[in-house]
Amino acid sequence: MTALTLARPDDLDRLANLVADFHAEAAIAQDEETRRAALLPLLEGSPHGAAYLIGPARAPIGYVILSFGWSMEFAGMDGFVDEIYIRQAVRGRGIGSEVLSTLPKALAGVGLRALHLEVRRDNHRARGFYEKLRFRAREDYMLMTREM
Amino acid sequence: MTALTLARPDDLDRLANLVADFHAEAAIAQDEETRRAALLPLLEGSPHGAAYLIGPARAPIGYVILSFGWSMEFAGMDGFVDEIYIRQAVRGRGIGSEVLSTLPKALAGVGLRALHLEVRRDNHRARGFYEKLRFRAREDYMLMTREM
Repeated sequence: MTALTLARPDDLDRLANLVADFHAEAAIAQDEETRRAALLPLLEGSPHGAAYLIGPARAPIGYVILSFGWSMEFAGMDGFVDEIYIRQAVRGRGIGSEVLSTLPKALAGVGLRALHLEVRRDNHRARGFYEKLRFRAREDYMLMTREM
Repeated sequence: MTALTLARPDDLDRLANLVADFHAEAAIAQDEETRRAALLPLLEGSPHGAAYLIGPARAPIGYVILSFGWSMEFAGMDGFVDEIYIRQAVRGRGIGSEVLSTLPKALAGVGLRALHLEVRRDNHRARGFYEKLRFRAREDYMLMTREM
């Protein structure tokens, strides 16, 4: 059973390093200062989201960041998997599945009604992976985003 | 200029009636008790979202409910248009555009980085409407949802 630890302010360095690794891999351009400033509120208990370290808290092998919101359709709190990352060296061992199956159960206990994530439509491998974890595709819909 | 008022607990009846109208129109099945229980935290200042009455606060002509979350990509708070509804009798007068153009500006002032909404891919009229309001389609992506 892989440990999942809610990240706190003294995890900032460890977590920021992992996020930098993920962003490099995903070609997300973000400077170190912005990244740390975006992480810190989550570690300080912001109601808007939470970060969890995957594996040993002192030497994590990945992380998952959830965003919490509200949905009238689901009649309560819902969440988004904002980012999930597992170090390359330990991929393919089912750690991601374990995390994405454990976390919703734990969060249902504190009132979460639904968990969403965004996936590339043409990434059939990822879609199959998430479907096995009981995520259902909202095929006919898409997001539109207005940046401030 | 159409008034936009943050809904408070004593707006519950007015708001719940409008939400019931919207749900009837959108064929969302939800009993009155569930609906009111899902609305109340928003009126009581939940950090997860907010409801705004459109038009005169005592006799609103619509409402918009926003959900607030967190995004690493946008490096801060983001939001979702959870529901927006304008009474049929006053549609086609640009009220929705006004609301969706005013609200992001106001919310940018309190730190909102991006506003999202979900739209049917084949609803070209809605897509065109939102594009004019500077919402950009995330064409290649879709949501997947796991209900608890």
